[in-house]
Amino acid sequence: MNEFELIARLTRALPTNDSVVVGAGDDCAVLDVGAGDRLLLFKTDAVVEGVHFTNATPPEKVGRKALARCLSDIAAMAGTPTAAVITVGLPKQFNPVSVEKLYAGINALAKAHGVAIVGGETTTNPERVFISVALIGNVPREKVLLRSGAKAGDAIFVTGELGGSIAGRHLEFEPRLLEARWLAEHFPIHSMMDVSDGLAGDLRHILSASNVGAELLRAAIPISRAARVLSKRGDAAKPALVAALTDGEDFELLFTVASKSAVPLLDAWKKQFRKLELSCIGKIVNGEGIKLRDETGVRPLHAHGYVHFS
Amino acid sequence: MNEFELIARLTRALPTNDSVVVGAGDDCAVLDVGAGDRLLLFKTDAVVEGVHFTNATPPEKVGRKALARCLSDIAAMAGTPTAAVITVGLPKQFNPVSVEKLYAGINALAKAHGVAIVGGETTTNPERVFISVALIGNVPREKVLLRSGAKAGDAIFVTGELGGSIAGRHLEFEPRLLEARWLAEHFPIHSMMDVSDGLAGDLRHILSASNVGAELLRAAIPISRAARVLSKRGDAAKPALVAALTDGEDFELLFTVASKSAVPLLDAWKKQFRKLELSCIGKIVNGEGIKLRDETGVRPLHAHGYVHFS
Repeated sequence: MNEFELIARLTRALPTNDSVVVGAGDDCAVLDVGAGDRLLLFKTDAVVEGVHFTNATPPEKVGRKALARCLSDIAAMAGTPTAAVITVGLPKQFNPVSVEKLYAGINALAKAHGVAIVGGETTTNPERVFISVALIGNVPREKVLLRSGAKAGDAIFVTGELGGSIAGRHLEFEPRLLEARWLAEHFPIHSMMDVSDGLAGDLRHILSASNVGAELLRAAIPISRAARVLSKRGDAAKPALVAALTDGEDFELLFTVASKSAVPLLDAWKKQFRKLELSCIGKIVNGEGIKLRDETGVRPLHAHGYVHFS
Repeated sequence: MNEFELIARLTRALPTNDSVVVGAGDDCAVLDVGAGDRLLLFKTDAVVEGVHFTNATPPEKVGRKALARCLSDIAAMAGTPTAAVITVGLPKQFNPVSVEKLYAGINALAKAHGVAIVGGETTTNPERVFISVALIGNVPREKVLLRSGAKAGDAIFVTGELGGSIAGRHLEFEPRLLEARWLAEHFPIHSMMDVSDGLAGDLRHILSASNVGAELLRAAIPISRAARVLSKRGDAAKPALVAALTDGEDFELLFTVASKSAVPLLDAWKKQFRKLELSCIGKIVNGEGIKLRDETGVRPLHAHGYVHFS
């Protein structure tokens, strides 16, 4: 049983109540807490030494990454983050100066996005550092973007370049908060999420939530320089395209919009965000699963995204 | 540096914003999210195998405890819990059936208190189970109870019986949500918190937040049967009174109220909550620290509460 199968089993029976607009299964939970036209977003995410970083990773970058991952989930709903609480599990011999550096990394990113750090807990995890962040935010009720709204005919977009994040970007990525809110404000986006487990795997979440399929254009997938460099190293290296489709931790935005909005959106994006690439990588189709189109034809894409837990 | 010293250093520089009513340092953070006369409460807490439970603890009880600890913090603010997200770090060989039992324990307690479980994450923590819960709730703006409101002359109350929780109650305690809301609705409570690290240590948090001292009546401290039984076992046992003052994980309510309300409060409590003891254990005084009064006189209490991290 992998992470997704286990989660699917667990989420079937979760308790709910009247405040829940969207429960487990999207990038964030969406709650109605009586705040007028704004809904509350709620998310938790953890990073673990030896899984998401090493004992050689500078603690500032560990802290930054722990918060940035949650911010990326708020971005995926076109939301604005508000406040976070932090749980840090530490080996007993862990240096207090390193804890302060870890918090410095969290605090700097929080300040940059106007996020308050309002609580936390330090506890013991003897063998490795374990950091769990919970984050709340908000989003106008009419602007919240879910995974479930993709429609046949939609153009599929992704920001930035994909693959090879392990070479460094996973510690330094910018959560796409501004970009996501701008998209939600200016275009009728049908579905959105962040790419955290690999484009191929994550797009499948949009497809199954929306009951549709996708056809991707091989030549349009934006492959990062890091993925290209890594693809040339050693026997275990994967082709750069496969890296772009399956590597985890890109933390870019993946979204769909009605095809008639695709060109105006691209034009407006180029004026608004000069430094961040936006690629139309294919279209939503009737059916299910992902097909990849190249000069030789169309074939089903079986490559799975990165799976954390198996 | 112990947990409290480290936290004191870390909390000095935390980023804040306009939504923060009370940041780190009370039982929950208090946020104004524009929900009319209600404030949002936000809390995180973790339990770790080998620290808060053993590998022999039934997983249902582990899950129950993980959520109950956070519920107790919402109770401490006289709040109502709404929704939780759960992060579970698991060794790779951990049985999926045990994960389901762990969630069954969480879910049963959540249902009992009307709490929705709206998300979570399963990740790897190779050596031991690590569960982090984040919980939101709400409280009427005029009824939120902080640690900082104690006044000289206040009567000090504690619910239930203290000490010896390790004998079993730490896995089965009832968060005092109903009782706390009833107190806030019916009496002008000045300060409140939950007793999680031992009465002596926790009362000091109220005293320093409120800039006052306390005088406790030795004979009035409600000592649990478990603490008395444990006190008779072996050389390492501590006297039952010391256990009641310093054992962790009681999860009872500790609060102060103007002395003129003490007798009416006790009378009303006995009618409302027949099965749960309420004890007036002393009074708030000018000055600082805790003094203990018994038949021989008054002496300073140096015993500290249980400290998680040292």
